[in-house]
Amino acid sequence: MAKIHLNGRLIEEDSARIDPADRGFLLADGLFETLRVYDGQPFMLEAHLTRLAQGAAALGLPMPAAEVIARAARETLAANGFRQASLRITLTRGTGQRGLLPPAEPSPTFLVAGHPLAAPPAELTAQISSIRRNEHSPLSRLKSLAYLDNVLALREAATAGFDEALMLNAAGGLAGGSRSNLFLVLAGELVTPPASEGVLAGIVRRAILDLSREAGIAARETPLALSDIERASEALVCNSLLEIKPLVRVGERRLGAGPVGRELARRYELLTRQA
Amino acid sequence: MAKIHLNGRLIEEDSARIDPADRGFLLADGLFETLRVYDGQPFMLEAHLTRLAQGAAALGLPMPAAEVIARAARETLAANGFRQASLRITLTRGTGQRGLLPPAEPSPTFLVAGHPLAAPPAELTAQISSIRRNEHSPLSRLKSLAYLDNVLALREAATAGFDEALMLNAAGGLAGGSRSNLFLVLAGELVTPPASEGVLAGIVRRAILDLSREAGIAARETPLALSDIERASEALVCNSLLEIKPLVRVGERRLGAGPVGRELARRYELLTRQA
Repeated sequence: MAKIHLNGRLIEEDSARIDPADRGFLLADGLFETLRVYDGQPFMLEAHLTRLAQGAAALGLPMPAAEVIARAARETLAANGFRQASLRITLTRGTGQRGLLPPAEPSPTFLVAGHPLAAPPAELTAQISSIRRNEHSPLSRLKSLAYLDNVLALREAATAGFDEALMLNAAGGLAGGSRSNLFLVLAGELVTPPASEGVLAGIVRRAILDLSREAGIAARETPLALSDIERASEALVCNSLLEIKPLVRVGERRLGAGPVGRELARRYELLTRQA
Repeated sequence: MAKIHLNGRLIEEDSARIDPADRGFLLADGLFETLRVYDGQPFMLEAHLTRLAQGAAALGLPMPAAEVIARAARETLAANGFRQASLRITLTRGTGQRGLLPPAEPSPTFLVAGHPLAAPPAELTAQISSIRRNEHSPLSRLKSLAYLDNVLALREAATAGFDEALMLNAAGGLAGGSRSNLFLVLAGELVTPPASEGVLAGIVRRAILDLSREAGIAARETPLALSDIERASEALVCNSLLEIKPLVRVGERRLGAGPVGRELARRYELLTRQA
């Protein structure tokens, strides 16, 4: 039986209880992080905890100390014997009085759970979602529990036979995937939309921007239009579990895997081995 | 100790357990309804269940039969002796495999909980929120668990000393309150933005449109601009718990309570007594 970490205690998953009055359950009032575990070690944990802290500050949510979360992560992995796995950290505002207004002094719910790894696909296809991201909300840049738009976008894509949904923002710019950040190679340059376009500050996205500098690949953040996909020589999607994968089809437009994606995936893999 | 209805069983709230792997908790993958209870009877239950069914269809979520939900509501109210109360119905997609994609055959989580009523304010003030509603998502028209934008908008308003947050949509049109629908009286005519503006199909909103017809008050759904608040002779907000209340201030703009709001509130109160 799997063990999970709930509010500082490692317990059997079956006996872990979320209160039906938890605001994470009732109102999506919380945040999460999904990490990849390589050889028993959570990868880039510090970057994930920094992002979680930024989200917690935006929501006005007290957060356990980074060491407490790191210890919970290690204990969860050890108790389940996970070596290659995914790890999810969930932080909610806990219970409160009825209604939308947060309690003055919340007692957050803090959950860490691991999962055996499902191998990611070698390449992905995507369709453009009918659902758009909302760049006029801070949540478009945070990994909050309000994830249902993404769920519906991916469900819509899967029903149509695609692996991922690419989402535009309200202004019609390209924002990214339902669960991934998007990069295009345009005229030899690697480009990805900035956070202001309604884009989550992905950890692998950041790593790609850093790795491209090391590799001498010109890269920058810039708003992208749907028509840029037609002009792209490569398209890449990334997240902690997918890592860096070529997007080989967007709707009817076929793209190949290419040298930029291969080089970045190679360097990222080295990074994961060094950790 | 309060009793709640969870998956068909009436149990002590303390022993009610939401699974930490519930998609309602992890991804806001679910819906809810908030009803007012008058004299032990849930008001306009049928209309709420119709809206819940429409949301469930949009999400691809199986829903318990209306009679099952109605019985759970009655049993919850009776067990707690609630006469004047609020009642929340929550329906989630239950647990599933890790990740965003819904399970092929979900076992929904179905929760009914009542709360003693806090008396609504007689009138409200509001500020314009920095967070906008996303009319490019079906969720802007559904009462989904992805409610964190509304939570943050109301928290921002409360911090600034206001009772409600009015939210624009991405295009800059007036959409409504963080937890209420908005009506304005413009040149003697009652107006409210249509669902296509990113507006929840409120049950009291619908009742107002019907009551205004009976009262001979001209009323229609039409897109509204922020500047329309300057021109309005009255502004009203409504939901099942607030009922129909005058919005007497929006930012620096003061409005009075007026005859249209008073007449609609009077007729709505009659409706609640007849039920």
